[in-house]
Amino acid sequence: MKLATLKDSTRDGQLIVVSRDMTRFTHAGEVARTLQAALDDWGEAAPKLARLAERLEAGSGQSERFDQRRVHSPLPRAYQWADGSAYVNHVELVRRARNAEMPSAFWTDPLMYQGGSDCFLAPRDPILAGDEKYGIDMEGEVAVIVDDVPMGATAEQAGNAIRLVMLVNDVSLRGLIPDELAKGFGFFQSKPSSAFSPVAATTDELGEAWRDGKIHLPPLVSLNGIPFGRANAGVDMTFNFGQLIAHAAKTRALTAGSIIGSGTVSNKRGSGPGKPITEGGDGYSCIAEIRMIETIERGGPRTPYLHFGDTVRIEMNDEHGASIFGAIEQTVQRYSGDERQ
Amino acid sequence: MKLATLKDSTRDGQLIVVSRDMTRFTHAGEVARTLQAALDDWGEAAPKLARLAERLEAGSGQSERFDQRRVHSPLPRAYQWADGSAYVNHVELVRRARNAEMPSAFWTDPLMYQGGSDCFLAPRDPILAGDEKYGIDMEGEVAVIVDDVPMGATAEQAGNAIRLVMLVNDVSLRGLIPDELAKGFGFFQSKPSSAFSPVAATTDELGEAWRDGKIHLPPLVSLNGIPFGRANAGVDMTFNFGQLIAHAAKTRALTAGSIIGSGTVSNKRGSGPGKPITEGGDGYSCIAEIRMIETIERGGPRTPYLHFGDTVRIEMNDEHGASIFGAIEQTVQRYSGDERQ
Repeated sequence: MKLATLKDSTRDGQLIVVSRDMTRFTHAGEVARTLQAALDDWGEAAPKLARLAERLEAGSGQSERFDQRRVHSPLPRAYQWADGSAYVNHVELVRRARNAEMPSAFWTDPLMYQGGSDCFLAPRDPILAGDEKYGIDMEGEVAVIVDDVPMGATAEQAGNAIRLVMLVNDVSLRGLIPDELAKGFGFFQSKPSSAFSPVAATTDELGEAWRDGKIHLPPLVSLNGIPFGRANAGVDMTFNFGQLIAHAAKTRALTAGSIIGSGTVSNKRGSGPGKPITEGGDGYSCIAEIRMIETIERGGPRTPYLHFGDTVRIEMNDEHGASIFGAIEQTVQRYSGDERQ
Repeated sequence: MKLATLKDSTRDGQLIVVSRDMTRFTHAGEVARTLQAALDDWGEAAPKLARLAERLEAGSGQSERFDQRRVHSPLPRAYQWADGSAYVNHVELVRRARNAEMPSAFWTDPLMYQGGSDCFLAPRDPILAGDEKYGIDMEGEVAVIVDDVPMGATAEQAGNAIRLVMLVNDVSLRGLIPDELAKGFGFFQSKPSSAFSPVAATTDELGEAWRDGKIHLPPLVSLNGIPFGRANAGVDMTFNFGQLIAHAAKTRALTAGSIIGSGTVSNKRGSGPGKPITEGGDGYSCIAEIRMIETIERGGPRTPYLHFGDTVRIEMNDEHGASIFGAIEQTVQRYSGDERQ
């Protein structure tokens, strides 16, 4: 089934069930007022939501037209957003671009950072930034929402706790990253609010594309309407979601509704880095990656980061070309402070 | 007023108002079911909670005996836990102990890490850890809970968004920190769940001790019943809470209920590091600090990290010796996995 969160006057919105083709929805308030409430008691809620989804597919019961512009991120705010960096290829490129060697442990011990989860952007919200000099970048990723995970869970147990799958735009301020990471405490100001896809889907909605704890489909990343990346999320993913979740749960339990991300999807091409789509490659899920390749191959970056007015779109299609999660589509805008409430 | 969260069968517990002397409480469900719900609509909720507090102090209306063992951390789970490191003295010592110079920017640009907030420990919960070799340590800190803070808020605006104050035990696994920080993405496994004081108080409860965005009182940190630290939270705090919150809000808004921590409270002694309480000093709010001083002064650490069975207590008294927030009191226990539900 597919779930989403309709905007209303509350902070957490209203849980709705969306039809597979994303044309219709039905309110799910009789089961749970919010997606977090459903996740808090998933064993009770999931079968009831599944029945609502069945009725919706059958065309019985009340439904309304679904509009992706009317929804929040599935969890407008969450208790946890932990983002892995499972495409180690991408990490190796980052290092090569600055002539640093990547520790070999990176192939066996996942990189993961604790992200801010108190205030996500809606999938069609603008990306507000104070200055283009921050080096505004998108990151096309996949993410899962988990049920409760006990401390010390194995990768297999952790994989079994996956309840929903989504896409993410993990907005990054590249210009702020070097100084921030040099301080040693990880990202903070360099990772502003992320946006998630309009719809979160159970793994069975992905059919054969969901296997081995990975989604074997490409997030389609476009910039100003031009395809920028279509790297396959199931390729070169060194750690699957079960492994990423188990990493997060090594020394503490994870609460239901925690979101675990894959990191920027990135594919190698043979033994080398990927190529732009315009050159017949699969492109990139973020601008930083093409800039790293330009640095390695041409002595310096050529592609600029996002400008005010640029529009980023991230979606994912099934084998029939139908959108699975709806589209994240965000325009970068200057933040002047007048937007403050 | 003083607020707390009574444990019940729900994940978020029940909001209660606690008497100033912490002997009585009254249910606040008529105002808001949970503390987060009150924070979501603080302008509406706060005056009503204040009236309940007044009635409780006057001895009118129903009340029950308050037992610190029956409460969660004020927010059993939160949308954000961002911990600063405002006692730069402490940071400088960490660096000196490993012969590294501290960048001078650390005196002007706050260090802050994004912590896990999905699953806090109750103030009397055990600290569960898989292995003593993790280097289990307490960190006695103060923290504030804020209202909504817009992106780009000034330190003054940010300071005005402070709604409640608490104590924290920011449990740290020192043995896991070096490898984790070397990976470059900050803390994750090395920062398991934190615990907060039984009670969160509005700043007016602190009287004169709350000024300049700081609490001018010492968190009293004890280990196995023996005083370990009484460094004053108002001394050597390079960044006040307004500045820490503004740092957190530089590139994104903060949602009501976000918790911002001070970092381990640490006082210098003249131009040098503090001394143990047994030597007439104010001691330390974490074991790592005395180990660093031992390393600098005696060539290596002498004080061990926490053992299974050790008990940490953190509280704070007013000028009359009365506890303000109640006591965090936690015993370290081996986690075998049998605790999994």
